[in-house]
Amino acid sequence: MALVDYTGNEGRIPVLVVMRAQAGPEEIARVCKKIESLGFRPHIMPGAERTAIGITGNHGPVDAAEFEDLPGVTEAIPVSKPYKLVSREVKPDNTVVMVGGFPVGGREMTLCGGPCSVESREQILASAWAVKDAGGQLLRGGAYKPRTSPYAFQGLQEEGLKLLAEARAETGLGIVTEAIDVETFDLVEEYADCAQIGARNMQNFSLLRRAGRSRKPVLLKRGMSSTLDEFLMAAEYILSEGNYQVILCERGVRTFADHSRNTLDLSIVPAVQKLSHLPIIVDPSHGTGKRDRVHPMALAAVAAGASGLIVEVHPNPEKALTDGYQSLYPDQFRELADECRAISDLLARRRENKSPVYVN
Amino acid sequence: MALVDYTGNEGRIPVLVVMRAQAGPEEIARVCKKIESLGFRPHIMPGAERTAIGITGNHGPVDAAEFEDLPGVTEAIPVSKPYKLVSREVKPDNTVVMVGGFPVGGREMTLCGGPCSVESREQILASAWAVKDAGGQLLRGGAYKPRTSPYAFQGLQEEGLKLLAEARAETGLGIVTEAIDVETFDLVEEYADCAQIGARNMQNFSLLRRAGRSRKPVLLKRGMSSTLDEFLMAAEYILSEGNYQVILCERGVRTFADHSRNTLDLSIVPAVQKLSHLPIIVDPSHGTGKRDRVHPMALAAVAAGASGLIVEVHPNPEKALTDGYQSLYPDQFRELADECRAISDLLARRRENKSPVYVN
Amino acid sequence: MALVDYTGNEGRIPVLVVMRAQAGPEEIARVCKKIESLGFRPHIMPGAERTAIGITGNHGPVDAAEFEDLPGVTEAIPVSKPYKLVSREVKPDNTVVMVGGFPVGGREMTLCGGPCSVESREQILASAWAVKDAGGQLLRGGAYKPRTSPYAFQGLQEEGLKLLAEARAETGLGIVTEAIDVETFDLVEEYADCAQIGARNMQNFSLLRRAGRSRKPVLLKRGMSSTLDEFLMAAEYILSEGNYQVILCERGVRTFADHSRNTLDLSIVPAVQKLSHLPIIVDPSHGTGKRDRVHPMALAAVAAGASGLIVEVHPNPEKALTDGYQSLYPDQFRELADECRAISDLLARRRENKSPVYVN
Amino acid sequence: MALVDYTGNEGRIPVLVVMRAQAGPEEIARVCKKIESLGFRPHIMPGAERTAIGITGNHGPVDAAEFEDLPGVTEAIPVSKPYKLVSREVKPDNTVVMVGGFPVGGREMTLCGGPCSVESREQILASAWAVKDAGGQLLRGGAYKPRTSPYAFQGLQEEGLKLLAEARAETGLGIVTEAIDVETFDLVEEYADCAQIGARNMQNFSLLRRAGRSRKPVLLKRGMSSTLDEFLMAAEYILSEGNYQVILCERGVRTFADHSRNTLDLSIVPAVQKLSHLPIIVDPSHGTGKRDRVHPMALAAVAAGASGLIVEVHPNPEKALTDGYQSLYPDQFRELADECRAISDLLARRRENKSPVYVN
Repeated sequence: MALVDYTGNEGRIPVLVVMRAQAGPEEIARVCKKIESLGFRPHIMPGAERTAIGITGNHGPVDAAEFEDLPGVTEAIPVSKPYKLVSREVKPDNTVVMVGGFPVGGREMTLCGGPCSVESREQILASAWAVKDAGGQLLRGGAYKPRTSPYAFQGLQEEGLKLLAEARAETGLGIVTEAIDVETFDLVEEYADCAQIGARNMQNFSLLRRAGRSRKPVLLKRGMSSTLDEFLMAAEYILSEGNYQVILCERGVRTFADHSRNTLDLSIVPAVQKLSHLPIIVDPSHGTGKRDRVHPMALAAVAAGASGLIVEVHPNPEKALTDGYQSLYPDQFRELADECRAISDLLARRRENKSPVYVN
Repeated sequence: MALVDYTGNEGRIPVLVVMRAQAGPEEIARVCKKIESLGFRPHIMPGAERTAIGITGNHGPVDAAEFEDLPGVTEAIPVSKPYKLVSREVKPDNTVVMVGGFPVGGREMTLCGGPCSVESREQILASAWAVKDAGGQLLRGGAYKPRTSPYAFQGLQEEGLKLLAEARAETGLGIVTEAIDVETFDLVEEYADCAQIGARNMQNFSLLRRAGRSRKPVLLKRGMSSTLDEFLMAAEYILSEGNYQVILCERGVRTFADHSRNTLDLSIVPAVQKLSHLPIIVDPSHGTGKRDRVHPMALAAVAAGASGLIVEVHPNPEKALTDGYQSLYPDQFRELADECRAISDLLARRRENKSPVYVN
Repeated sequence: MALVDYTGNEGRIPVLVVMRAQAGPEEIARVCKKIESLGFRPHIMPGAERTAIGITGNHGPVDAAEFEDLPGVTEAIPVSKPYKLVSREVKPDNTVVMVGGFPVGGREMTLCGGPCSVESREQILASAWAVKDAGGQLLRGGAYKPRTSPYAFQGLQEEGLKLLAEARAETGLGIVTEAIDVETFDLVEEYADCAQIGARNMQNFSLLRRAGRSRKPVLLKRGMSSTLDEFLMAAEYILSEGNYQVILCERGVRTFADHSRNTLDLSIVPAVQKLSHLPIIVDPSHGTGKRDRVHPMALAAVAAGASGLIVEVHPNPEKALTDGYQSLYPDQFRELADECRAISDLLARRRENKSPVYVN
Repeated sequence: MALVDYTGNEGRIPVLVVMRAQAGPEEIARVCKKIESLGFRPHIMPGAERTAIGITGNHGPVDAAEFEDLPGVTEAIPVSKPYKLVSREVKPDNTVVMVGGFPVGGREMTLCGGPCSVESREQILASAWAVKDAGGQLLRGGAYKPRTSPYAFQGLQEEGLKLLAEARAETGLGIVTEAIDVETFDLVEEYADCAQIGARNMQNFSLLRRAGRSRKPVLLKRGMSSTLDEFLMAAEYILSEGNYQVILCERGVRTFADHSRNTLDLSIVPAVQKLSHLPIIVDPSHGTGKRDRVHPMALAAVAAGASGLIVEVHPNPEKALTDGYQSLYPDQFRELADECRAISDLLARRRENKSPVYVN
């Protein structure tokens, strides 16, 4: 187990200022100004009933008491977890992230599908229609590919982004695609509805900060050997720069088990939901690496409470340039979508009118 | 990854003799006699349409051709996998194991519940009624406890077994309880309907052989760092001694992840079902080690296709001698049972009248 | 990370009674009697300067204060670690275990070599002479083999034990061989100088208890996914039954890394030495699973401070029935022995006349 | 185990053209021209006896036969491993990387020491003198820190680089410091003698490519869950851009084991040395995360054959801003240096005049 030193020795006390329900914009502005005057950065987080303001910054300790006397303030609380803005302590309500007009984290599950890589106009359009026909909302597809080998196919790059945009124009699906570094983030941000940060980049802090300065939502995949705390801290990097539109994604971790490409760790779904307000979805394609495991693990993810799925589907998997062996055929994808929705609806209906007894 | 040497250097070719559909008992007997005359051991495996006979033994190679000319034989095939009797190559139909009159591995999911340890008559009866009221079929409860510390509570032993039998008499539930060594197996076999072999004993080969000589069904839990092949080979030990009534159970593996006690590896459910005819169930209690994860992971297990669940429930978790923090309250257990059955029924109904498209 | 519950909810306070340096046998006997009269079990642990008496037992709390007034007692201290008898808190001096007249855990490193399995008189004698010629003290060789497959070579059994005894008679080496269950322990104990408990049986608690009732030393291998605490607790099982002659052995753990059979975790050597007085040796053969890694990892183990090595050597590795690919040729083994001793001597000489500065 | 797809479906055959010993510069130039004319990129690798030329490129297959008829060519061989330029197949002799005038990978071990972070002029100078006094060659110290938390100390940045340069001017030590992204690489390259790429960035392919275009040597740390193949492929990225001055570094991997911060996997040292000509060193500070494990694991690394060590030392560990608990005191570091050199010299002397028998 890695013993992570979150706070350094700097003596900082990360603090959250909670406003009264009746507090108005001037009172909020006054708290922010006070925070800035002390050399820190305020983060306004509007809630269903009241607003909270997080304090971050790199230098020196904050005295929570300094804020408690300001008008409109209920309390100023030091936050116990190393993560703050992603924490449910700070924002009890679920965050719903809008991607291309579709909600992620709401009552209904969101389905994102598409090929590993964008390969051609024909291929990406056929994929998009397969997703649309199955009732999906979002189209995935890599234009920039992080590859283990420098000699492997690296993606169609900007041409791929243009093809994705074309598929959106035709089908109305939202577009999710990966930015592999700060340089490619600009173009991804320009063309896509949601920028993905892949597992290998989960602790590429420069890229996380760049994503934090974006106005587009971000899909953050869990690293291959990331703990829950590290995963949430990576998201915290994005939020700390001001972008609160973050979707988390479990995609399997690396273990001794050799019957699947990765070990899909579904128990992180309820664990994240307990600690954080951010939505979490699951990628059963990379999480298993084998086509015949994708369907059962997709159902399992939905049953475990995931807010959505991201699944590889290809019009012609045996001809795919990358990851063909884990891509579904379009009719398999439709069947998966139908069963996942059936489970999602069943659970939503059952829980609609009762208070849950299963939470500890 | 452990490179397991399955076959030794003995040059054996494990062989399966498949009989014609019309083959009668004399023809089967003749094949068995031939196998024995060569110094090997025959295993008769009746199937829905035809019988197969497995050949095992320790010395020298078998020539498959020697059996193909015998009357009633369709073919004699060398088996490619290290496991043989557990393999779907050998028995394509699902095995249904009967425990106390209840099927495990059939169309409907089986629910087994109960406390970690049997502590008292009052406690075990209350637990049994909680299981019964929730619609469960089987009662679990440890009379012999394998404990990390020699100074920890080791279970009520035979007294515990008697209390379990009493609970069965009152409620009609089948009884599942752990045998921790060859010595305790005799008593467990006498009182229980199904003997459990725990994760720490998955490669206790003497215990596996003992279980193989029993007439009672065996619940075999996956070891904490067991690969799929090792898990199936452990079951093969039991079958190779003549006991084909084996239920497999996933209960989480050990990884770097520290947000749960173990990492529940649900993808082993479809992986086992592809390779083996044996039923596999899931233990979300040990698989997560936290009460609030048990419910979502139980749903996930059923959605992934598990044939049943084994869940810790206790009338008074905060007073439990062992594992109280992961035991459900009775009303949580009933809620879990209801939702799991709803998912199980939904999927069974959907699949009743169609050929599956999701298998590779 | 597994959250192990060591103590149950039984409210026991494991206690250690420390005697004055001048305390005589009657005073010690009196303390023991008092312990027994309260329903507990005393463990006398003679030290270089004074004797300590450990208290174990299954029922109820102990009040340390009850012992402090007895004559000869310095103090009675509750022990903070879950393990007690194996702890350096309880016995600060290193334990030296004598095997066949050879010390393990003393100033000089101990070298144990031999084949994976005893295969024939010729093979085991050739192996024994190879060990002897290289300056080794102990001969290893399996007569009972725990095998993943029920169809694989299971060892020569008692015949193998007799051959080992014959090799001892010829060469004077001490004999180390594995007992795979309670049944085989009797015979192993009869023939061998040290009974080995293998990695798969590290938490076979019945076998550990049986070993604890033996008068022969025990070599306990770390389980494939065992934590440090579990490893020490397994040893505690043996000591708690009265056998203090335990040698620990690191043999690699299971991880995602696929360049070696197991990942040899050498940092457990100083970790064990800090917490426990028991000697720890290293098995670089199973720890790597590849012949060309054995030599460098053997040197590394000695440099890290291991008290000895257990290494597979075979007169004819390519004809070995088991583990041939990781067995050394005799001349490789001699070279390994020479270099290991050179490092061991170098470090011993350097440290002889100085107080170490490197311990925290 | 991750099933890594190295080559994509592009049908490329990576090829190595081996020149005759007598081949002159014109013949080499001719081969390169031919390679370029086919749309590929040549990599000239001068060896002790003859030159080899690697072919890389992204499009289409290469026919090895096309090169065999050119003057001066001995053979053109398809390379079997996914990595090519890092492979010993391609360059049998060890690579010696010069850092600030000091060799890494030569006959003698190289010692790099210094604090986790550069904190002040006083601190870095005191650290540098501690390294120098202990006989070390290289000074480490982070000016840019990749931190799990966005709120933690991020390093002195360019000011830190200037202080490192000042320490070099005073002591003559070579400087090793981390670049955390493409942006910081420029400054690190300007000030330091060797740019470090950290474990979290091992698969930051944009950063690897940038390092490949540098003229400074690169120290590449193994990722926390990186396989051997992935590690070598990451180095291949750097070499494929033309920078052959790469030092590999093992720093521990993430496993279930909780007695150390990471599990130091020393067996990767001989594994790398078998497959690659690049030097590999070991970081026992991050590899263990505990001060009292650093010394024994440093000795073990040297005994296993590592070409050097990188160790955290701080004039005042208890006041360190980062990683103080794993930093050595100066006198501990000197003791470590002395014992490591003693082992290194011992093994070098022993092996000087004999052909090794221990390699398989």
